[in-house]
Amino acid sequence: NGRYLPHRSATVHIEDRGYQFSDGIYEVIAVEGGKLVDEAGHLDRLDRSLGELRISAAMSRPALALVMREVLRRNRVHDGIIYIQMTRGVAPRDHAFPKHALKTAVVMTARRKKPQAAALADAGAKVITIPDIRWQRCDIKAVALLPNVLGKQQAVEAGAFEAWQVDAEGRITEGTSTNAWIVTDKNELVTRQIGPEILNGVTRLAVMALARERQLKLVERPFSVAEAKAAREAFLTSTTSAVLPVVAIDDVAVADGKPGPLTRALRDDYLAHAAG
Amino acid sequence: NGRYLPHRSATVHIEDRGYQFSDGIYEVIAVEGGKLVDEAGHLDRLDRSLGELRISAAMSRPALALVMREVLRRNRVHDGIIYIQMTRGVAPRDHAFPKHALKTAVVMTARRKKPQAAALADAGAKVITIPDIRWQRCDIKAVALLPNVLGKQQAVEAGAFEAWQVDAEGRITEGTSTNAWIVTDKNELVTRQIGPEILNGVTRLAVMALARERQLKLVERPFSVAEAKAAREAFLTSTTSAVLPVVAIDDVAVADGKPGPLTRALRDDYLAHAAG
Repeated sequence: NGRYLPHRSATVHIEDRGYQFSDGIYEVIAVEGGKLVDEAGHLDRLDRSLGELRISAAMSRPALALVMREVLRRNRVHDGIIYIQMTRGVAPRDHAFPKHALKTAVVMTARRKKPQAAALADAGAKVITIPDIRWQRCDIKAVALLPNVLGKQQAVEAGAFEAWQVDAEGRITEGTSTNAWIVTDKNELVTRQIGPEILNGVTRLAVMALARERQLKLVERPFSVAEAKAAREAFLTSTTSAVLPVVAIDDVAVADGKPGPLTRALRDDYLAHAAG
Repeated sequence: NGRYLPHRSATVHIEDRGYQFSDGIYEVIAVEGGKLVDEAGHLDRLDRSLGELRISAAMSRPALALVMREVLRRNRVHDGIIYIQMTRGVAPRDHAFPKHALKTAVVMTARRKKPQAAALADAGAKVITIPDIRWQRCDIKAVALLPNVLGKQQAVEAGAFEAWQVDAEGRITEGTSTNAWIVTDKNELVTRQIGPEILNGVTRLAVMALARERQLKLVERPFSVAEAKAAREAFLTSTTSAVLPVVAIDDVAVADGKPGPLTRALRDDYLAHAAG
């Protein structure tokens, strides 16, 4: 909110609508070798989320770009992530939008990369499946993440990395903070088409572009839990996980239970892309 | 969080999980003549919400009762509301629950009653109907209120007081911050049964008890939008609205478009109950 503060003393008002109503949005951007990965894609989506909620942008895009770099510089983050949250602002508690325009609240933090990602990628991750109980506008990257929190916690307690959420028709929507992918026995790369049920991941879009470069057969459609368990390969994508092999779904091994060749190739492509 | 502060300087940390994940719950309790209305009912529900999310209570119930009274006293609130929010606490951002137990964060505020309620009750309120796009655990009084915010805003823009949300089967669940009721042509009082689709309103429970005292025929079941529009009477209940007549649904007048006699009787009963 206009000031650079030490993390411990960075606060927001108790009537920030983000705190009382989850009336705000966020983005997480990876930083590789001092560069912001897919910066334009993230800022496009940030603008889209704000637009869907009719929250005015807190600052111009050039100003935001400058502030992000300053936050990275002050935190000496060369490889890691930057977190941006914007909310409708501070107002006396009332569900409807305040009648007078508020000053959009902005919080930005940076932290260095956690080191465990590479080992997990070599072994592959387990996922569980759970009913998708979220709201019907998951295309908005809102901070109303309580169902995602509960889903991720279920995964952790089951010894898994992620929970894939399943719609009323038995089809996987996405993970609690990642997109879901499979490779079929026809070597088709399948991920769910965008719509209100999923977030259009920036990493998802990057991997789609890389798959096209490899001339893979890419199909955007829903797939069932049964189809995923019988798949040749499975993986998930997100800013912090990049392309992460999935080797078991509900404790059923995917193929031979090892990361698949297409997954590994796409992971390498993506890491090269992220490294610029 | 353990300190009494002037409203303007009351803040929470940017990594309070309430702010980043809407990982918290709340209650609003009415204060009438210095007394907390249905205090036990609200604190029971607060405990239930915390339990469902496995958030530990911030303090014992006697301590909470003392703090509420101190907040009222310091703010000189004799008639108004008290707002209580508890979240899982402050931790580095990660969806799953933190491994070590956090200190539950608590925010409490009090404010005096807004004066417009009586005039609205005399004229009756208009409601619109909208699809219910919320998550599937609306029985938890969580701060993940973004869909409720968007629904209430739709109501305001349509010149209405509230939006009644409609499930996939065309049946009304509840308002964005109120429960929905009708009186049928058989003089049955109908409100939806509790379940994951609605919040079990404390005012809803109080009105049910009052209806039984009046020996009204009370039925807990879903009702459709068409049934509501054709009803003899309609009203809504909440802590801040008490029992509020609904005189139009989607601009269709309910009966003669005036508050109905049963609604007025239950409102009087409830106001007497709230006044103790």
